[in-house]
Formats: sequence, C-alpha cells, structure tokens
Amino acid sequence: RTDIDLAVIAGDGIGPEVVAEGLKVLEAVTAGSGAKVSSTAYDLGAKRWNATGETLPDSVLDELRGHDAILLGAIGDPSVPSGVLERGILLPLRFALDHFVNLRPAKLFPGVESPLAVERVAPDGIDFVVVREGTEGPYVGNGGSLRTGTPHEIATEVSVNTRFGVERVVREAFARAQARPRKHLTLVHKHNVLTHAGHLWRRTVEEVGAEFPEVETAYQHVDAATIFLATDPGRFDVIVTDNLFGDIITDIAAAIAGGIGLAASGNINPSGEAPSMFEPVHGSAPDIAGQGKADPTATILSVAMLLDHLGRTDEAERVEAAVAADLAERGSAVRTTSAIGDAVAERLS
Amino acid sequence: RTDIDLAVIAGDGIGPEVVAEGLKVLEAVTAGSGAKVSSTAYDLGAKRWNATGETLPDSVLDELRGHDAILLGAIGDPSVPSGVLERGILLPLRFALDHFVNLRPAKLFPGVESPLAVERVAPDGIDFVVVREGTEGPYVGNGGSLRTGTPHEIATEVSVNTRFGVERVVREAFARAQARPRKHLTLVHKHNVLTHAGHLWRRTVEEVGAEFPEVETAYQHVDAATIFLATDPGRFDVIVTDNLFGDIITDIAAAIAGGIGLAASGNINPSGEAPSMFEPVHGSAPDIAGQGKADPTATILSVAMLLDHLGRTDEAERVEAAVAADLAERGSAVRTTSAIGDAVAERLS
Ligand SMILES: CC(C)[C@H](C(=O)O)[C@@H](O)C(=O)O
Ligand SMILES: CC(C)[C@H](C(=O)O)[C@@H](O)C(=O)O
Repeated sequence: RTDIDLAVIAGDGIGPEVVAEGLKVLEAVTAGSGAKVSSTAYDLGAKRWNATGETLPDSVLDELRGHDAILLGAIGDPSVPSGVLERGILLPLRFALDHFVNLRPAKLFPGVESPLAVERVAPDGIDFVVVREGTEGPYVGNGGSLRTGTPHEIATEVSVNTRFGVERVVREAFARAQARPRKHLTLVHKHNVLTHAGHLWRRTVEEVGAEFPEVETAYQHVDAATIFLATDPGRFDVIVTDNLFGDIITDIAAAIAGGIGLAASGNINPSGEAPSMFEPVHGSAPDIAGQGKADPTATILSVAMLLDHLGRTDEAERVEAAVAADLAERGSAVRTTSAIGDAVAERLS
Repeated sequence: RTDIDLAVIAGDGIGPEVVAEGLKVLEAVTAGSGAKVSSTAYDLGAKRWNATGETLPDSVLDELRGHDAILLGAIGDPSVPSGVLERGILLPLRFALDHFVNLRPAKLFPGVESPLAVERVAPDGIDFVVVREGTEGPYVGNGGSLRTGTPHEIATEVSVNTRFGVERVVREAFARAQARPRKHLTLVHKHNVLTHAGHLWRRTVEEVGAEFPEVETAYQHVDAATIFLATDPGRFDVIVTDNLFGDIITDIAAAIAGGIGLAASGNINPSGEAPSMFEPVHGSAPDIAGQGKADPTATILSVAMLLDHLGRTDEAERVEAAVAADLAERGSAVRTTSAIGDAVAERLS
C-alpha cells in the first residue's frame, strides 16, 4: 500500500523507449494496490553533456538520493567520447550511492532461444544469479598514464580491493545462496595470477562461509568459469565475483540466457541508506533508437527486481510471471517495443 | 632438413601423457625429412617443488634458452598452493623469454561438436585466432596487500601497459590479419572504464593500422565480445587483446570450438632471440592423470604451431590435416591418449 517515489533516468538511444514500457508495466501491476507511483524524470546522458558539458551534477545526485529507487534506461551515444558518460554518470551513480551489490540474474525462460545447444549442454535449464561487486576492483578509476602519446608511454590501471568491500558483498551473496533451493555459491576470480586480490576474496569466502554452514561453496578461475558457462551453465546457482570479472561473465550469462534484450540488473545498496538503481544490462543501441525495435523485456524485468527490492515481492513475481507467459507465447512474430509492453501490462490488469 | 633441438617440459598431471603423443607425432611427420629431432627433458613442476622447493632455477632457464623451441605439457597440482607454480614457472617463462605474442587459434574442425547451436549461430563455421599480449597487463605481478588478514586489508593489482609492449603485439596481430584471407582485426578491451590502458591500446591500433591499409579493424568491449563469441563467432578473424582479457576470451573461444581438449597455443617471441614455447591451453587435470583418458589433440596441434614457427610450414600443415582427418572420423568411440596419438601419427607415415 505504500507509495513508490521513483527517479527515472531514461537516458540515450533506446533508453526512453524501454523505460516507457517499464513504467507502463509498473503502473499496471500496482494499479489495484492503492499505491501511488510517482516518477520524476532526470535528464542525464549524451544530450545534456553535448549541450552543457555536464555529466552528473551534484544537485541532481542530491535529488536522486531522495527517491525510493531509480529506474535507468541506457546511457551512451557515439557523439560522446568513450568513457565520458560511463565514468561521468553510470559509475559515479554506483559509487556515490554505494551500490555494492550488482545483481544480475540469468534465467532461460521457456520459449526463449539460446545460442547454446541447450538440449545437450543444459538439459535442466539455466537459472543462476551473479552477484557482482559494484564499488571496487579495476573500476575505481585509479589509473594513469605517463609520457602519454610518446613511444615511452606507460598506462596503468589499479584494481583496489578491500576486506570491507569484499566481505559485505560476499555476505550478501551467501545470504542469497542460502535463500535459494540449491544453496550453492561459486566464487569466480583468478587467484593464481592476481594473488593479492584473489587471496583476499578466497579468504573472505572461507571465513564468511562459516556463518552459512548450509551453503556449499566452489571456486573457479574466471577463464574456466567462462568455459562452464558455455558447456554446463546448469551447474551454477549463485556466483560472486569482482567488478570486472562480473562485467564480463554477466554478458556471457545474458547471451546464453537468450540475449541482452532480456537481461535485467539491480545496482543495490542493501543498507537502504541510498536508493538502489535498476537497469537493463544492454546499452543505448543508437542504431535502432526511435524505431520501436528495442525489446523492453530487460527493463520490465528490472522493474520486477525494483519491486522485489522495495519489498513488493508479490508484484515482482506477478511481473516476472507475465513476462514468462509473454515469452512463452512470443514465437517468431516481430512486435514493436510498445506492443511488448502492452502485452505484458495487459496480462497484469 | 635442419635438425630440431627441443626442450620438453612435460610437467604435471596429464602433461607427460599428452607430451608423449605430441613427440610421437613430431617424429612421424619429420621422419622422411632427414631432420634429426632431439629433445631434452626438463623436470619442472609440482614434483620438483614438493621435493626441493624449486620452481624455475636460473640454471634451467639458461639451458632452455639454448634450444630451438620448448614444448610444454601442463603445470599444476593440488599439492601446491595456488599461484606458486603459475607465478614461479609458467609466467616467468613467458616473461623471461619475452613471449609477447600468445597465439591461440580457435577453429571448429568438421566432426567436432560445439556447445553452440552452430547451425543457427555459426553456419559458416568458426575460424579465428586470438593474439593475446603475453608480457604485460595485470599479469606483471605488480600488486600487494596491506594489513593482510585484518578487517582493514587492502589488496591491489596493477595492470601495467607500455606503448612499446602494446605496439609490438599489435603490429604482429596486424601482420597476421594481413596474411589471412579476410584481413580483419578486432581490438578487444574495455576502454570506457579502463580509460588509460584502453586509450593506449586504441591509439596504438589506429596508428599501427596506418601501416596495414588493407586490414579492416573493429573494436569491441570485452563484455560485448563475449556475447558475440556465443552468438556470432563467425564474425571474428583476428582478435588482439591484453593479457587478462586474452586469458578469458581464449577459454570461451576454446569452449565454442570444441573444448580445451583441442585448444593449442604458442607463446611466441617473434624476434627469435629466445625460444618460443608451445603448450595446450588445458591444465594438468590431475583427476584423470595416468589413466590414458586425456585427449592429446591440443598438444599435437601445439606441435603443428611449433613446426610452423620453425618455418616448417609444410609439416605443420600435414599435422593439422592429420588431426582434422582424425577428428572427422573420430565419432563417439572412446580412445586412449596413446591410441589418438597413434592414429594421427599413422596418417603421417
Ligand atoms: C557501460 C559500462 C560502464 C558498464 C560496466 O562496465 O559496468 C556496463 O558494461 C554494464 O555491465 O553495466
Ligand atoms: C595457468 C595460468 C597462469 C594461465 C594464464 O592465466 O595465462 C592459463 O590460464 C593460460 O591461459 O595459459
């Protein structure tokens, strides 16, 4: 019955199109509940940067803090140099709002085609979740270059990992594994090469694991993990990993579970001290923007994660069920972005 | 007609078994040539470390330098803490012998099963090669930890990239692309987040590319590249990338091209000032060691790469053709390690 006060960053490219469908579904699923959904739009992204040179002004960040949650479409455009918006908007949001749990489920819904020969390599389906650390690792922006542009250039990137940062995300991952039927957690790292960071992760998993005696743990080097994602993805239940490895394996995970058109994510601050942010894993796809060709399903599933995060479990499950039903009946017919949103919303009314 | 003076590091687990078959095939293919193949065995690996605490003694490294090439089986055993042999033997070999080109072909041979639904996602086959940088990046061992084991621990890993190091491997990759029919090169990095290293790579590809006007170039973020490896691997011809990204994507590449039982690699020093080293991508697989269950094909294909590197193109092609024929007729029959080696060797006599 509580109202939902949302910040919406539609962003660039297909962002506004898919966000519109996400909000449509949010309206539909909350319609009978008596809850009022209010959303405030924030224009961040390429257009603003091109017009004003601004990425994420402090005043906007302050306002964002006041909302219950953030729904983000996509940020990025070829008119902006690589890195500017990523390191000016997307990553600062995750860092400033302390989104240390970057949650990315990978579930192959019935009726969805995988690039894998699933009948051979995943006969029991694909259903796992990656808990990617969101505020440390090689993403901290702690790099530099010397003698740039000369034959003597040196460029460094520093991965920073703290016990504090690793422990809190590992504990969240264990709690999620504990709550799932299989209760299995795989740590993915590369501790045979990145020994310092790797051993910190490994020790932390061992120690926090003592608090979760029912959860079985496994370890895999990131390279080996990608092999299993292609040859035996059914073995995974919960994966916990660092920011960069998580970036990579969640894209493979999305690919094998039917494509990034379906992959949802949550940038979560479990403390509740700042709003969490939900976004499709895909980018702004400027090549198909404005044509009604984008699949809004990833955004709709991100709305389900948002509802779940706000404690509205029942509504979250209904959205996921509606998406599952839509996917099961989708067939090969090509539908517009809004037609897909309509179809899912209809199932909820 | 020139003789081949080989250093052989059979190593641990299945290493000795697969190396024996590699040498059998090498003997077979060179038999008629009048060339004498001599091989000197070096015992490096878990057994030596357990017995003496030694990893790669300077004296051994010096001797290795004197050979034409090195054939390595696999290094690693559960009795040795993670990282000790990797950072004590495997990586020091690559670094000391300046193996800056880590060459990893991914070719789906007829008759080989891929975890992908190839008829849908790779109707024209899979045939690309990854040029992984081998002496820089996050592999330099430039990390550390502070307040280790306390709640205040910080662990860092530094990726070091130089214009010198990037330029030489990028030039090799362009040359390889130039020599292939499709003449296409994809740079894989993550320059929107790892801006310093990423921009160094990007600028270098642009600049070196001017020397190779016939080669078409593309760029992909590492996360997106993994998606395409699963959904459209046929698009790749030559990929150039850094040490860590290369580690990860070559394992996916191996998986989609039929598994790491088939994946060969060369750690190449193109200057010829130190011997290059050829090894299967797979590890020591201690669980199946000594049972004749290991597939020696990856080692045999590594021998083909070794021959090619020594300028023995014709013999290299014959080995590859023999392997291709063997794979095409392999079917589902289970054969022992030596039976596979025998079958390939027989085709060469
Ligand atoms: C756009 C980019 C900064 C981002 C990341 O690397 O985290 C994206 O790839 C993602 O996975 O959300
Ligand atoms: C064993 C390990 C050090 C090595 C690497 O990471 O390079 C292996 O994974 C490989 O790809 O050859």
